[in-house]
Amino acid sequence: MPGNTFGKLFRITTFGESHGKAVGVVIDGVKPNLKFSVDEIQRELDRRRPGQSNVTTSRQESDEVEILSGVFNSRTLGTPICLVIRNTNQDSRDYAKIKNIFRPGHAGYTYLSRYGIEDYRGGGRASGRETVSRVAAGGFAKQILKKHKIQIIAYTKEIGGIAAKQFEYKEIENNPVRCPDRNAARAMIKLIEKAKHDGDSVGGIVEAIVVNCPAGLGDPVFNKLESDFARALMSIPAVKGFEIGSGFASAQMKGSEHNDAFYYHKKKKKVQTRTNYAGGILGGISNGAPIVIRIAVKPTSSIAKPQATIDLHGHRHTIRIKGRHDPCLCPRIVPVVEAMIALVLADHLLLRKNLRS
Amino acid sequence: MPGNTFGKLFRITTFGESHGKAVGVVIDGVKPNLKFSVDEIQRELDRRRPGQSNVTTSRQESDEVEILSGVFNSRTLGTPICLVIRNTNQDSRDYAKIKNIFRPGHAGYTYLSRYGIEDYRGGGRASGRETVSRVAAGGFAKQILKKHKIQIIAYTKEIGGIAAKQFEYKEIENNPVRCPDRNAARAMIKLIEKAKHDGDSVGGIVEAIVVNCPAGLGDPVFNKLESDFARALMSIPAVKGFEIGSGFASAQMKGSEHNDAFYYHKKKKKVQTRTNYAGGILGGISNGAPIVIRIAVKPTSSIAKPQATIDLHGHRHTIRIKGRHDPCLCPRIVPVVEAMIALVLADHLLLRKNLRS
Amino acid sequence: MPGNTFGKLFRITTFGESHGKAVGVVIDGVKPNLKFSVDEIQRELDRRRPGQSNVTTSRQESDEVEILSGVFNSRTLGTPICLVIRNTNQDSRDYAKIKNIFRPGHAGYTYLSRYGIEDYRGGGRASGRETVSRVAAGGFAKQILKKHKIQIIAYTKEIGGIAAKQFEYKEIENNPVRCPDRNAARAMIKLIEKAKHDGDSVGGIVEAIVVNCPAGLGDPVFNKLESDFARALMSIPAVKGFEIGSGFASAQMKGSEHNDAFYYHKKKKKVQTRTNYAGGILGGISNGAPIVIRIAVKPTSSIAKPQATIDLHGHRHTIRIKGRHDPCLCPRIVPVVEAMIALVLADHLLLRKNLRS
Amino acid sequence: MPGNTFGKLFRITTFGESHGKAVGVVIDGVKPNLKFSVDEIQRELDRRRPGQSNVTTSRQESDEVEILSGVFNSRTLGTPICLVIRNTNQDSRDYAKIKNIFRPGHAGYTYLSRYGIEDYRGGGRASGRETVSRVAAGGFAKQILKKHKIQIIAYTKEIGGIAAKQFEYKEIENNPVRCPDRNAARAMIKLIEKAKHDGDSVGGIVEAIVVNCPAGLGDPVFNKLESDFARALMSIPAVKGFEIGSGFASAQMKGSEHNDAFYYHKKKKKVQTRTNYAGGILGGISNGAPIVIRIAVKPTSSIAKPQATIDLHGHRHTIRIKGRHDPCLCPRIVPVVEAMIALVLADHLLLRKNLRS
Repeated sequence: MPGNTFGKLFRITTFGESHGKAVGVVIDGVKPNLKFSVDEIQRELDRRRPGQSNVTTSRQESDEVEILSGVFNSRTLGTPICLVIRNTNQDSRDYAKIKNIFRPGHAGYTYLSRYGIEDYRGGGRASGRETVSRVAAGGFAKQILKKHKIQIIAYTKEIGGIAAKQFEYKEIENNPVRCPDRNAARAMIKLIEKAKHDGDSVGGIVEAIVVNCPAGLGDPVFNKLESDFARALMSIPAVKGFEIGSGFASAQMKGSEHNDAFYYHKKKKKVQTRTNYAGGILGGISNGAPIVIRIAVKPTSSIAKPQATIDLHGHRHTIRIKGRHDPCLCPRIVPVVEAMIALVLADHLLLRKNLRS
Repeated sequence: MPGNTFGKLFRITTFGESHGKAVGVVIDGVKPNLKFSVDEIQRELDRRRPGQSNVTTSRQESDEVEILSGVFNSRTLGTPICLVIRNTNQDSRDYAKIKNIFRPGHAGYTYLSRYGIEDYRGGGRASGRETVSRVAAGGFAKQILKKHKIQIIAYTKEIGGIAAKQFEYKEIENNPVRCPDRNAARAMIKLIEKAKHDGDSVGGIVEAIVVNCPAGLGDPVFNKLESDFARALMSIPAVKGFEIGSGFASAQMKGSEHNDAFYYHKKKKKVQTRTNYAGGILGGISNGAPIVIRIAVKPTSSIAKPQATIDLHGHRHTIRIKGRHDPCLCPRIVPVVEAMIALVLADHLLLRKNLRS
Repeated sequence: MPGNTFGKLFRITTFGESHGKAVGVVIDGVKPNLKFSVDEIQRELDRRRPGQSNVTTSRQESDEVEILSGVFNSRTLGTPICLVIRNTNQDSRDYAKIKNIFRPGHAGYTYLSRYGIEDYRGGGRASGRETVSRVAAGGFAKQILKKHKIQIIAYTKEIGGIAAKQFEYKEIENNPVRCPDRNAARAMIKLIEKAKHDGDSVGGIVEAIVVNCPAGLGDPVFNKLESDFARALMSIPAVKGFEIGSGFASAQMKGSEHNDAFYYHKKKKKVQTRTNYAGGILGGISNGAPIVIRIAVKPTSSIAKPQATIDLHGHRHTIRIKGRHDPCLCPRIVPVVEAMIALVLADHLLLRKNLRS
Repeated sequence: MPGNTFGKLFRITTFGESHGKAVGVVIDGVKPNLKFSVDEIQRELDRRRPGQSNVTTSRQESDEVEILSGVFNSRTLGTPICLVIRNTNQDSRDYAKIKNIFRPGHAGYTYLSRYGIEDYRGGGRASGRETVSRVAAGGFAKQILKKHKIQIIAYTKEIGGIAAKQFEYKEIENNPVRCPDRNAARAMIKLIEKAKHDGDSVGGIVEAIVVNCPAGLGDPVFNKLESDFARALMSIPAVKGFEIGSGFASAQMKGSEHNDAFYYHKKKKKVQTRTNYAGGILGGISNGAPIVIRIAVKPTSSIAKPQATIDLHGHRHTIRIKGRHDPCLCPRIVPVVEAMIALVLADHLLLRKNLRS
């Protein structure tokens, strides 16, 4: 029940502080006798890695994964897999100076409220670095989804009000903001560079689409598929909102518009809907249509601009946060979103199996 | 792990189909020796009850709660409390006729995909009637929160594009749409009546504010307070989106705007923030500011207008859904939202206790 | 996590006090579309029922089960099944007199230590009546096991030093002590009647054998099959010990004796062992051999003989416990043992399914 | 829910194969701001370490623990603690030769039945080496218990029929069999040496006493304190039986004997019992008396004597197991028993806290 475990049957437990020795994850509930590719996990980690482009932090971190258990001759044993990624490029000196000062938008104050102690170095456990563990585990979950031909495609939909208007799949990993619209990407990059130059940051929207998800996943009434997605994605640092299908737009719609009409696709021999306002889920269970999810990402809290704040003792300070921070989190959150969605799906694939004798 | 249990330490398990004998809930993890008011639970059920006004369904259902266990001399024993509400006004005849036809926007098809069997009468377990159990349990959770002086205020913020512009607390339970703005309420009622007349339905937005929530609730990194709220609220039928604080608006903000500045409130002897874009939660843990949540509610799927659909065998049909349905779900979802938030908070109050020796 | 839930995927939550309105259980994680026989559940309840013979309590309780949910047209829906058994023959008057006096061997003092409140009437939640819920749920679990041809046979092995020496299957339900040895049964009955006459009680040993359990059940390293059996059976009131296979006798054995030799049974095309000291489980996983379990049952705590004790305030009392109590618990614990074993196996059958794609 | 996690609020997840890179554990639910002694953990690992005496295996393994997370400036952060112990002295060559042959008493066959794949080297995950993780976690749990003055004393009670007759506390860690009776210890050592010389092994009984456990721990009806102890101890490799208090002896007792009489100890201002047949637990909840537990340990399965068995294909073989194995497991199981008991108690201390406001 403690908070560092996620999943019911496909279950991960993550650990690690930003400036500690390592971050990592134990994956339990793994199907045995599965070919296991450490390269595919490394590839996902590389997509999340800092220093990959001009619009992300300039920190360099190799984020190499080591497998401690659960794999034998490149196959899963069905026993827990422990993946460890050492922290190698941490510079904790800057943090010592500001250790008692609350950084606006950061979790220092709330961690102290809850735990009475904080590893102030780089945000400790509250750092975005924690998501390395999620991406590593997700990299494995994706290998399971691949066998079911399920694909997750996440991308930057909007940054600081600039929205993608086109969707070109190949474009996504082709530009540093991971936007499927080349022109929008260019404008987004400019906006981010401007924010960086100003010592500021910008927010955005990330969208994810799940293709080929079979009908029948989801476990009402509390583990509905969208509930589990919502929990999963809202647990990513900096996420402020979650939508499925029509989302908040549904508030302005009528039933006669919103209800997706069923029809039978003769060639595919499959029940389908003409529209997809539901976003691929009805009554908490997938209906076989693409699952469409959007999340809101707040602007990075760590900014160079001077900000008014206080310290532990209530004394006022003006703080300028040094260090190398992402001026926009969207590009690096994209693989984290995919990882969390993959973990939810891998879990629900197992949960569904229990219903068939 | 099955899907009908919610909560970690304060835990509910719900049961019941819409047209079965009863709906109910077992609450486990209850603090012993607590005064227990069945009246307060009944009051919450009455707020959710069908037939309470002209803008809700005309079905009449008394929804009387019976306590089977866990309470002795009006005090909790610390043992599981089972609450049962009999279904008394169910009319299953209409459903027999359309049992093989998929109602657009409904869960019939997905339930069949998952379970291979469905109680088609009134939606069975997928019916909104299932939320009776949540409200009953929430009515008890609220009694715990009251001892901590925590208050949850939910209301209709927007219906079909008409938004509340004023907030008058007493107005909320004063009008049938539960909107804190009297004028907006009037316009909303008209809109709902029009939709009803047209055999259609409308969506909306419900907002909830938690007042007096202490700092320090939330269990990173996967049971963050907002993650648990998101899971809880996204599991309510018809909810398509979830926001905390700035929500989707954060996507268009800069870090220098969004970061809430800390200051020390000398009289209250409390760390506070000048703005509340965070919505009361930082790093997954409450910071003592009001918690602000919004959810998107889709327009009711059951509408009288003719709709194109298919049956089990893929044959086309035009369906007109009879029965007495809510033309807008917001008014009756308000108490369900409060119940789910109360359940999350009651749970996290217990989870926090484990950190203190 | 609270204590009234048992099972991982096939999960029950029980509720109810001895002298409250009802006892019952919610079963979640149930396979859908399964024929459901309420008669088979009633039959199990009748085996546990008080007043069935001269060697059990003379209390009469019809223990009729009512199904509130989860079943439609005699088939399971895959949604939670709530079973309720009303308490009808409770006489609480005697208990009011002794409500502050600790009955030796009973849980009054420890319940007060933990909860600070107690439903003293008939032991409240600590009463053996709580096991009605287990037997009802087990009665359903057995219907699942039957489809896998798994059979559980429990019986009284020993009472007050008198041990069964023969095993005649049909004899078990043929005598009131449920002993497979007719002669031993007769001696046991005499011993129990003597104890009853003396206002005393006797202990015993119950043995259970699981036949046709497939190899491959059990989830190392903490949910080994024997661990789950041990937890399940040690949670039954009055059980003081648990053994699997050789059990405590293994402490005096040599490895060369205890190791069961593997051989290949050509006709059955099956790996088997020549002996079964393992008791059907190796490394926490079933090996296909019969599972052999024994539990120690202490003598009933409620006895008529005068006993020295104290009250809440530490004052001395001599207590004579009136009421109608079982002079030996073994006969009525037999169906409870079967129920708990059935619940563990139904759960592990589901847990194993996750390993197959 | 997968099988490598133990505990509800104080929760461990273990990982690692015998001949893999490492074994280890993630501890979640840890109280923050607690002084953390890695030396005390190392001390427990040293007690379990192979090669510590003549009666244990001659394998040498340093078993040095590394902390990867959750600790900052020697204090717990309240975040997950990952402890890793590298495997350094593994020799897998012998195992390659017998990889398809089922070793009697071992889990090779059942692991293949369940997983369809096995790390045959040294037993893989089924090896006793897995308990390193338990002892590491238990070493931390003990540090919590110490603050509550709770002490766990485990020792060898009996080996191959030779029973301890005296209890001298200091003697336990003074002899290689960890027996509190010096004379019995001497006889036990002789017996073990004889078994070793014969290429055989012997079983025994380990007893554990918990002193100063407060009344009120245990969570009926399924997480009774004895149920959790039983599950915990039965999950240790080679354990075949579990008893609490009177255990199997209760089967031959009368209620008038077995009921522990309550009295009030004026000096201690405490309710106590004159005898302790209950073994410190009534109704699943600790009563403040010493908790007394016994487990049966089977003779080591790995013996040098020739044994008849078969291989994967059903062909017959005679096997002689080489390698360096413990001729009796009791001495090295003692710290594992203490660790598991410590984990259960640390968990129940947290579980109880939820009952107090």
